[in-house]
Amino acid sequence: MASAASIRANCRKVICIGRNYADHIAELKNARPKQPFFFLKPPSSLLLPGQGPMLKPRGVTVHYEVELGLVIGKTVRDMHAEDREGALDSIENYLVAIDMTARNVQDEAKRKGLPWSIAKGFDTFLPISNPIPRQKIHPRPDNLELWLSVNKQIKQRDNTNLMLYNITRQLSDISRVMTLEKGDIVLTGTPKGVGPVVAGDRMSAGVRMDGKEIEEGRIEVD
Amino acid sequence: MASAASIRANCRKVICIGRNYADHIAELKNARPKQPFFFLKPPSSLLLPGQGPMLKPRGVTVHYEVELGLVIGKTVRDMHAEDREGALDSIENYLVAIDMTARNVQDEAKRKGLPWSIAKGFDTFLPISNPIPRQKIHPRPDNLELWLSVNKQIKQRDNTNLMLYNITRQLSDISRVMTLEKGDIVLTGTPKGVGPVVAGDRMSAGVRMDGKEIEEGRIEVD
Ligand SMILES: [Mg+2]
Ligand SMILES: [Mg+2]
Ligand SMILES: [Mg+2]
Repeated sequence: MASAASIRANCRKVICIGRNYADHIAELKNARPKQPFFFLKPPSSLLLPGQGPMLKPRGVTVHYEVELGLVIGKTVRDMHAEDREGALDSIENYLVAIDMTARNVQDEAKRKGLPWSIAKGFDTFLPISNPIPRQKIHPRPDNLELWLSVNKQIKQRDNTNLMLYNITRQLSDISRVMTLEKGDIVLTGTPKGVGPVVAGDRMSAGVRMDGKEIEEGRIEVD
Repeated sequence: MASAASIRANCRKVICIGRNYADHIAELKNARPKQPFFFLKPPSSLLLPGQGPMLKPRGVTVHYEVELGLVIGKTVRDMHAEDREGALDSIENYLVAIDMTARNVQDEAKRKGLPWSIAKGFDTFLPISNPIPRQKIHPRPDNLELWLSVNKQIKQRDNTNLMLYNITRQLSDISRVMTLEKGDIVLTGTPKGVGPVVAGDRMSAGVRMDGKEIEEGRIEVD
């Protein structure tokens, strides 16, 4: 079975879908995209389970965004937007991830038309769970409950069936721009409820299927 | 000696400095940055010597940007902005790269405050030369002449001594955000003269030291 360390070792890019839940778009007062868009986080931002705290750079407002992650198992190019079976077959494992975001840095980048890479790319800005074996979720990644709490207070809890663009469409759009390779990670967007964490806060996150927690998907990070 | 294939195999991220030559900022009517900024290209965009043509996606205005590339040889974190020796020591090889850019996609992203990853990240959008052994350039990466021609017409030709932020400052700023790892590639920005290529165009690029071409740095791509 894959370990989180092997996920880290084999990851060559992390592709993140933006604005994929309507209520999250509304809470940040963003425009709804006419098609999926995405950005990259560097593999160096990955934070494995038990690897230590998430680091909050000075002068930065750090927001959590819980997301369902897909670990790609094969080369994917120009996937058809209706090829649901092909899309699900290209996923080797799932995981839960927190797309940490330097919100004030991102707001300034947006205002100036600059790239998001710094806002999204600090070391430790991508806490992940252990890999969730695909058979635990297949074929239902679009009917899971994601949740995140800060200091035991629930902040995010929504079903992946609220995604504006489903996983097939996401993998199709990404793979028409950049080839997906074995080991790449795709983050599928965050539901509503994002907010800041400060020094001393503890984040917990996870995923439920039919109301039952999937153990491997659990994240605990300071 | 490193081969281009080993560069590809070991690359986990490509970090590109934006707006690092004054005349290039002027030609695109951009604002001059108060500090270096950067973005990521995916390793999947690398195009090795002899690997085939650069692919021009439909509906896209594709611009060339010739740049000096640095292949990182060790882990770099929080490098000091004055540590020139440390910076140069962290470079294992040099190369010449063309940071291909979907300019109309990038212009729209800038207007909407969206990430640059799609505009910069298509497959084949990063033609590179063979690696240039570091001793051929060390300690003078800041006094090289970069050039690029389209169909034998020179389009870009400028000295790396025109960089607004030198290599030490670049590696310092990047490494305060994201750890540089062995195999990572840093692109140091493009001088003036960027412009479009269309189907059938042939790009050539290279680098000269003291007026003499460095053979390994040569790129020829259709
Ligand atoms: Mg990357
Ligand atoms: Mg996100
Ligand atoms: Mg460039």
